[in-house]
Amino acid sequence: MIALTTLRQKKIAEIVRTSGPITGKQIAARLFVTREALRSDLAILVMSGLIEARPKVGYYYTGKNVRTLLTEQISKIKVRDIQSVPVVVTTNTSAYDTIVTMFLNNVGTVFVVESGSILAGIVSRKDALKVAIGGNDMKEMPIKVLMTPLPKIIVTTPEESAFKAAKKLIESEVDSLPVVGVVSVPGNTAYEVVGRLTKTNITRLFVEMGEGKQ
Amino acid sequence: MIALTTLRQKKIAEIVRTSGPITGKQIAARLFVTREALRSDLAILVMSGLIEARPKVGYYYTGKNVRTLLTEQISKIKVRDIQSVPVVVTTNTSAYDTIVTMFLNNVGTVFVVESGSILAGIVSRKDALKVAIGGNDMKEMPIKVLMTPLPKIIVTTPEESAFKAAKKLIESEVDSLPVVGVVSVPGNTAYEVVGRLTKTNITRLFVEMGEGKQ
Repeated sequence: MIALTTLRQKKIAEIVRTSGPITGKQIAARLFVTREALRSDLAILVMSGLIEARPKVGYYYTGKNVRTLLTEQISKIKVRDIQSVPVVVTTNTSAYDTIVTMFLNNVGTVFVVESGSILAGIVSRKDALKVAIGGNDMKEMPIKVLMTPLPKIIVTTPEESAFKAAKKLIESEVDSLPVVGVVSVPGNTAYEVVGRLTKTNITRLFVEMGEGKQ
Repeated sequence: MIALTTLRQKKIAEIVRTSGPITGKQIAARLFVTREALRSDLAILVMSGLIEARPKVGYYYTGKNVRTLLTEQISKIKVRDIQSVPVVVTTNTSAYDTIVTMFLNNVGTVFVVESGSILAGIVSRKDALKVAIGGNDMKEMPIKVLMTPLPKIIVTTPEESAFKAAKKLIESEVDSLPVVGVVSVPGNTAYEVVGRLTKTNITRLFVEMGEGKQ
């Protein structure tokens, strides 16, 4: 829709890209036309975002296009805008009770916390299933045996962009990220669990974008 | 970026919206300016997608804006562009072997097929975990006991838009949809499994869009 369709617009964009900042008068001289003849083409190029006008300096190239607009739109959305409520169990919970908590809350991942809401580990359905088919007594098994412990957990924050969090989900091959705040504890840094960011949140966001709601 | 910033552009858009199709000359007359004075504003409005020009008819209103462009961009992507390879087991597989197949292929959902690749059911990690913590003998249990059978399965097709498929994932609260082709079998219609569409595919697509790759 916002493609540059005319040859003159492409020529102008190329001149601004290679010679910017450059004035409208200088561009006109290069193309052997009047400044007035370029007025609407320059307006379109500025409006499309591909070039920008800086007063008393001239036109310069930004390289932005529709794709960039899409990227900018996406990068504006923060984790806090789409995150879910975290579901947590304490470190002394059994594997069985952790799985029951998963089912009761209909979530695929629970966060294991200690000292209030300080992140200690994470348990996914995959972790739970791996132990459950091993024929173990789940009621006797402490959650610490099957959880992924803190140093290995990938986290996000409410201020991080949804895009960056989604990238973490894909690159780390996990279904869920704890949304955390960094807190100071004696001699260390700890994470306080404040939310949950999953592929479901990203999929829902994608649907809302497709419906024009984001 | 493509916001209409000038009052005159807003006035023109309003005239086209209420009186379109309308010629540039008629718009100029309404605003008491020359046709030439409107040239760049009309060009910007057409370029932004908010109005369109139809030869020998005039300008008419589309109501499109950046948000619409985003929506259009999203609706162009098909399931076939982002789907994964399906992981299947046959109807005579045990629950235990089905779960092993899940782990070996690192997927959260397997499709149960009969007569080649005709869809009969679907098993998620959640289904498997529910049975596994019940203390049942998984090696003796047939997959038919824990699978969701065909009439209840939500499917998608390669030609469906990724947006519509994502909407199905959210509204049906499932992690995965079988991508199917419709085939005729004697006395009935059946689905042939040709792919797998998950929240991971949608999340990856979102990341690619954010990177300007889609």
